[in-house]
Amino acid sequence: MAHIDLKNELPGIRGPMAFSPQTAKPLNALAEILLRDDNNTLTRGERELIGAYVSSLNDCFFCQNVHGAMAQYYMNCDMQFIDEIKKDYRSTDISEKLKALLSIAASVQRGGKNVTADQIEKAKDLGATDKEIHDTVLIAAAFCMFNRYVDGLATWAPQDRQVYVSRAPMRAEEGYADLDFYK
Amino acid sequence: MAHIDLKNELPGIRGPMAFSPQTAKPLNALAEILLRDDNNTLTRGERELIGAYVSSLNDCFFCQNVHGAMAQYYMNCDMQFIDEIKKDYRSTDISEKLKALLSIAASVQRGGKNVTADQIEKAKDLGATDKEIHDTVLIAAAFCMFNRYVDGLATWAPQDRQVYVSRAPMRAEEGYADLDFYK
Repeated sequence: MAHIDLKNELPGIRGPMAFSPQTAKPLNALAEILLRDDNNTLTRGERELIGAYVSSLNDCFFCQNVHGAMAQYYMNCDMQFIDEIKKDYRSTDISEKLKALLSIAASVQRGGKNVTADQIEKAKDLGATDKEIHDTVLIAAAFCMFNRYVDGLATWAPQDRQVYVSRAPMRAEEGYADLDFYK
Repeated sequence: MAHIDLKNELPGIRGPMAFSPQTAKPLNALAEILLRDDNNTLTRGERELIGAYVSSLNDCFFCQNVHGAMAQYYMNCDMQFIDEIKKDYRSTDISEKLKALLSIAASVQRGGKNVTADQIEKAKDLGATDKEIHDTVLIAAAFCMFNRYVDGLATWAPQDRQVYVSRAPMRAEEGYADLDFYK
């Protein structure tokens, strides 16, 4: 049971977002831009993967399953591959650039000051642009917020991981926010 | 020097926000609603204090000084009092309810699952409403993002703490965002 009366039975972050629609708007807009905006050289799958990975480091069941399922959908792989990346991305066959970005994301998860100049230099050497590094840092930071929002209020989450996989195509279609209000 | 070329010399979070105005919009809207919206039974000073406290736990110099200065401005106290709260809020003469909320914020800073039912019950016994607890959790979570954004990109910050105090009245006047775009 959630720590407060959310006045709805929605799972995960959707519960507090319905409780507080005023703050939900910028939160959803942030997710939409960071994870889905087409003006980005990181694929949607790569960005969802960064979010899923940070959520796994924060041990947030809801977020790592929502965004892990989104990553597998966009990357056209199975959940086992996503789980292998979360467990030990270095041993998987994702690109070296993405590995360097996941390394930066892991440092951000522990705290911003853990990101080192060496990590940044390595990512740049592997072709990461300033925008890609910026977005990696902000995605990782944003999931440190989303994860804390979800678990800090003790929201519930479906335990059947297949639920998240089944919903991924619809979520990919609908997105996180209608940004029309925002123009 | 920041980890990436931000193409501006602005301090703290303003550097990456100018680098990425598209993500700055929802970030500023979130800050505006959480910290300044008048439809809130927590004072602006209390909300800024929660942000400053979490920023101090995350060791983010820029954010703890910006929002510490905002808190002292709204609370009409001096920075020494804010520093005492950051150091050991339990020994200060802030309200017991605010102490209970700061305790929840500190748990969120370590990770959402650290918030206990006992902490929530205590806050409620001291008069905290569900919305106040919700906002405390989200403010704490949001500063875990803002702090990581600022330090994960190694932005610079004015070292003279008086700079932040001097700017607080203007910042209180101007706010964090024009929410007109957002209606």
